[in-house]
Amino acid sequence: MSTLGIAVIGTGKMGADHVRRIGRTVGGARVVAVADPDGDRVKAVAAGLDGASAHTDPAAAMAAPGVQAVLIASPGPAHEEAILHALRRELPVLCEKPLTPDPAGALRVMEAEQRLGRRLVQVGFMRRFDAEYERLKELLDAGGIGRPLFLHCRHRNASSPSFFTSDMLITDSVVHEVDAARWLLGQEITAVSVLSPTPSSAAPEGLRDPRLVLLETAGGAIVDVEIFVNCGFGYEVRCEAVGESGSAQIGEGQTMLVRSGGRGYGEIPQDFTVRFADAYDRQLRRWVAAAAQGRVAGPDAWDGYAAAAVSAAGLAAAHNGVRTPVELVERPALYR
Amino acid sequence: MSTLGIAVIGTGKMGADHVRRIGRTVGGARVVAVADPDGDRVKAVAAGLDGASAHTDPAAAMAAPGVQAVLIASPGPAHEEAILHALRRELPVLCEKPLTPDPAGALRVMEAEQRLGRRLVQVGFMRRFDAEYERLKELLDAGGIGRPLFLHCRHRNASSPSFFTSDMLITDSVVHEVDAARWLLGQEITAVSVLSPTPSSAAPEGLRDPRLVLLETAGGAIVDVEIFVNCGFGYEVRCEAVGESGSAQIGEGQTMLVRSGGRGYGEIPQDFTVRFADAYDRQLRRWVAAAAQGRVAGPDAWDGYAAAAVSAAGLAAAHNGVRTPVELVERPALYR
Amino acid sequence: MSTLGIAVIGTGKMGADHVRRIGRTVGGARVVAVADPDGDRVKAVAAGLDGASAHTDPAAAMAAPGVQAVLIASPGPAHEEAILHALRRELPVLCEKPLTPDPAGALRVMEAEQRLGRRLVQVGFMRRFDAEYERLKELLDAGGIGRPLFLHCRHRNASSPSFFTSDMLITDSVVHEVDAARWLLGQEITAVSVLSPTPSSAAPEGLRDPRLVLLETAGGAIVDVEIFVNCGFGYEVRCEAVGESGSAQIGEGQTMLVRSGGRGYGEIPQDFTVRFADAYDRQLRRWVAAAAQGRVAGPDAWDGYAAAAVSAAGLAAAHNGVRTPVELVERPALYR
Amino acid sequence: MSTLGIAVIGTGKMGADHVRRIGRTVGGARVVAVADPDGDRVKAVAAGLDGASAHTDPAAAMAAPGVQAVLIASPGPAHEEAILHALRRELPVLCEKPLTPDPAGALRVMEAEQRLGRRLVQVGFMRRFDAEYERLKELLDAGGIGRPLFLHCRHRNASSPSFFTSDMLITDSVVHEVDAARWLLGQEITAVSVLSPTPSSAAPEGLRDPRLVLLETAGGAIVDVEIFVNCGFGYEVRCEAVGESGSAQIGEGQTMLVRSGGRGYGEIPQDFTVRFADAYDRQLRRWVAAAAQGRVAGPDAWDGYAAAAVSAAGLAAAHNGVRTPVELVERPALYR
Repeated sequence: MSTLGIAVIGTGKMGADHVRRIGRTVGGARVVAVADPDGDRVKAVAAGLDGASAHTDPAAAMAAPGVQAVLIASPGPAHEEAILHALRRELPVLCEKPLTPDPAGALRVMEAEQRLGRRLVQVGFMRRFDAEYERLKELLDAGGIGRPLFLHCRHRNASSPSFFTSDMLITDSVVHEVDAARWLLGQEITAVSVLSPTPSSAAPEGLRDPRLVLLETAGGAIVDVEIFVNCGFGYEVRCEAVGESGSAQIGEGQTMLVRSGGRGYGEIPQDFTVRFADAYDRQLRRWVAAAAQGRVAGPDAWDGYAAAAVSAAGLAAAHNGVRTPVELVERPALYR
Repeated sequence: MSTLGIAVIGTGKMGADHVRRIGRTVGGARVVAVADPDGDRVKAVAAGLDGASAHTDPAAAMAAPGVQAVLIASPGPAHEEAILHALRRELPVLCEKPLTPDPAGALRVMEAEQRLGRRLVQVGFMRRFDAEYERLKELLDAGGIGRPLFLHCRHRNASSPSFFTSDMLITDSVVHEVDAARWLLGQEITAVSVLSPTPSSAAPEGLRDPRLVLLETAGGAIVDVEIFVNCGFGYEVRCEAVGESGSAQIGEGQTMLVRSGGRGYGEIPQDFTVRFADAYDRQLRRWVAAAAQGRVAGPDAWDGYAAAAVSAAGLAAAHNGVRTPVELVERPALYR
Repeated sequence: MSTLGIAVIGTGKMGADHVRRIGRTVGGARVVAVADPDGDRVKAVAAGLDGASAHTDPAAAMAAPGVQAVLIASPGPAHEEAILHALRRELPVLCEKPLTPDPAGALRVMEAEQRLGRRLVQVGFMRRFDAEYERLKELLDAGGIGRPLFLHCRHRNASSPSFFTSDMLITDSVVHEVDAARWLLGQEITAVSVLSPTPSSAAPEGLRDPRLVLLETAGGAIVDVEIFVNCGFGYEVRCEAVGESGSAQIGEGQTMLVRSGGRGYGEIPQDFTVRFADAYDRQLRRWVAAAAQGRVAGPDAWDGYAAAAVSAAGLAAAHNGVRTPVELVERPALYR
Repeated sequence: MSTLGIAVIGTGKMGADHVRRIGRTVGGARVVAVADPDGDRVKAVAAGLDGASAHTDPAAAMAAPGVQAVLIASPGPAHEEAILHALRRELPVLCEKPLTPDPAGALRVMEAEQRLGRRLVQVGFMRRFDAEYERLKELLDAGGIGRPLFLHCRHRNASSPSFFTSDMLITDSVVHEVDAARWLLGQEITAVSVLSPTPSSAAPEGLRDPRLVLLETAGGAIVDVEIFVNCGFGYEVRCEAVGESGSAQIGEGQTMLVRSGGRGYGEIPQDFTVRFADAYDRQLRRWVAAAAQGRVAGPDAWDGYAAAAVSAAGLAAAHNGVRTPVELVERPALYR
């Protein structure tokens, strides 16, 4: 297979990480253009790449010679315009989550794809590529624990960045469980409730952290998510699926057990880049292989839309203190 | 210490178990009288004991020579009368949970104790005597994980007995978590909500099993309890406490790990009598020692009342589908 | 059952512990006499007991009124004389390990029992009463992992007492694995080898710690024991049995898992009194019940003899650096 | 980086696997020639590759246009000739273990490299690239558990292929622990002993399976390896390092815990290709990157030689039943 030329839009933490990843671990692809409003930063990134051009305008990067696919890692509000531009050029897109900040933007992306008549947009819900999640999905699909009744999820970060808000616990963090639940169960979310304990004194003033988010699904399952972004002890993503004939847990494992100082312990990763490093690799490799054929190989724009709709309902539930139904448009034929 | 003479009221499964336990593992005590409305059954139990008299009337059993303490293991609706009778005789009581089926009965028990001016009634919440729960309680009290924010609880039975009802998931099963949460956190429960997934097809027709019960506490913590009495795979009681600076889990352990047939596994106990055998022993031993001095050494009538009040609110939440506040009377001085 | 009167010989750490245990957790027994060469110590112990007499002569303690059984917790070299005296009085004996320091003494004990025509001596190998070991024994006996091929054992102490010698790693520590292996496998040990790495710098000068002791059995199984009495991190006893169709491990479990400071950990007990507290309780309760009927309910004098013979061979293997066969006398009919 | 052209020598199970791996997961490399004495097989393999030539003669494959590096996956006895030919062409080599079946052949490879004046040969000890082994190595190097005293290793296969011999338990299986121990400890092996229990009835007639192999190291550590190639329950590689201040275990982990049918279990991989899939990937990626610069990035010919010398001593120990010292030539400057 020939080498796929990629334009990377956004060269912040995630974008720079993807650039490194393409160079280091993904065969068959290379970055040929990078774009970022911060001209100095984008030049610095391009300087580290052999033959890549630097741009402040995403459209200019996509128009650079050799661009065959687009990876979008700019802030969420900038996604829609970049995606629509890529679709006009009929370029495959891997877009970091969220697809768009609200359901309306996601619907416009879906309309553009429907006009094209094919799906070109993949959303960066990388948990679908994690080995543990894959095993859980296989077990559920094989009926290994019967019809699922509950997903009990824990999502914890050692600490939150300074710009994090109470809403972002739902739209930026729980959104991963939203997608994982939809994918694992093969069901849409129908309602959201949010319970909040007295915030941890370790959380920044004003941040409602932690929270318990409760999702109900079309198939009558219940998903409870503890989101705690200042838990202090590390990054942890655990999930127990409970079915009619058994339960299955992931995220408990420790690859090395140390005994020392009166304790037997395993290290807890401090960051999602450690826990999900392989998933990011796998996501990128599979997308590169699919993009070279003009296809997507992962969550598509419908998945991005559904996640945005649940996030919106989650915010309403959190703000109003009541269980909030999730309303979805009818699923277009292209996404069935 | 001399041997404590005990009257056992009720000789069904639990009562017979206690009779065996007193004979086998608890020093310093012996059963001197047994009572049960089923005359044949009570005679058979007494026949296996050296010098114990058989009665169909609880009062008669308590009046038998040598009775110094009363263990009540009759059905819940019979508890109040038996307790009040024992209190009239100023006998220490160990009463299986629930103290009474409703808060009003528990209040009457408390009034009787207040007239006596001392506490003689202990409720059989035996988890407080379990080694794992004790370690968790010590860790929380020592501030080992900071102020508690969540308790995530799983309470599972392989299958439910034929007489089990949807209400009993709350009043008979979750009531253990209610007491454990109050004890572990040192806080009263202030509100209850109940979420129900589509019932498991493994549950008997009409039984709403499993359920997710959500408790809020006076100190701003949240307790979620999965109760699943037909989970199929065994008896399992797990609890993760999440605090401001860490988390602690119990109930995960396996004392033997077997590798065979492509799997590494630990057995899951099939019954609470296996999982909590030591806790029942310890409860009885400590009560016997305390009762010999006319004291209680465990959950008292206030704890029984609080559990009944939360159960009542839990039933309302389940039936009406809404979050239901828990109202408690002011705590009498005797129970502070 | 009436209360069994016990004479406790030796009131050092283990003896005092047994005295407490009888009073606190074992029904149906009480200490009626204590003996210790240290007159002050024995008087202090007796003073804490209701109606127990203090002696400096073991024979005098055994002759005290009400003595029906003898618990020996004096130093090993004093065991033989005390046992033989108890046998002359036909009193059941529970003797702390080792039965005697050498095989010759154990043979004399066996001869005395054979003259009496019944077994009265039980040796304090309390692992046989540990819940995890019991489960492993049941699994092996049921053929759950097929014919056993290996036992991989780890025996670790946080640190060794000041009087500990290189020989004692074998005669005082590994002797527990010797008995456990004989009991689990139902086979005698036929040869011993010892390998010694460069001693740990954490061990006292001159102590050959740790060591690897290799036992071969009559049924062709191999037992490897890491003994490390200055491991620093706690007290740990683990055992993996490997059979023709599977493996089973005990001693891995943690009853509480804590997440804090970047680690998920379980506490490691710092002392055998913690890890084996229940086993000591159970040993004493079963022996009291059996002794009340003039029987033993655990490892007998033959087991004590076999352990002494393996210890002697182990010392030879350690001193001479070669594999050393174990020679046993023919097993007398009384011990079959 | 430009794409590295590789000649693959040997297209059996391992060779075919490497061919797939290069195509699928390793960027920057492609197979341009394949060689195998089985003309049909090699043609079939080449047919699946875009533009690769098929050969029955390894030398011809290495002479094919575009060959820049050689991957040798032929049977062990064929390694030496292929390596020496590659060295004559100054091509970087990744050679499956063993480097050569005996120490003499390995010494001749080292002489050829010394004449060249640089190292071009890497041996396929892929455990050095496994994430768990890497973490253990880091911990040991950082002094996290103090000076190492023991490595306790378990190496188990569900069943052995039909051609497996008692010698191969040592030369083909334990050789992995030999290299891992040398690498983890940074010490040479100085002596080998072998203990054999009665063979498992699940092993083919005449195969001495399992065995316990004991390695002593120059730094005074002891390594015990249980090798069991017909354990029945799966593929398992575990290692516990015990140091002066702690212990660390790898290979215990399960990424998904399932509760069902009275058991809580994790799957055990059935094959090394599952357990070490990532290690094989990583080995190949790092070698490709290094080979493009004419370097090796892993175990070199000295490591292959040392492993062959320990294997030879291990065979002597097994055949003669005695501890056998390992003799190594002085380490040439090129390999220091």
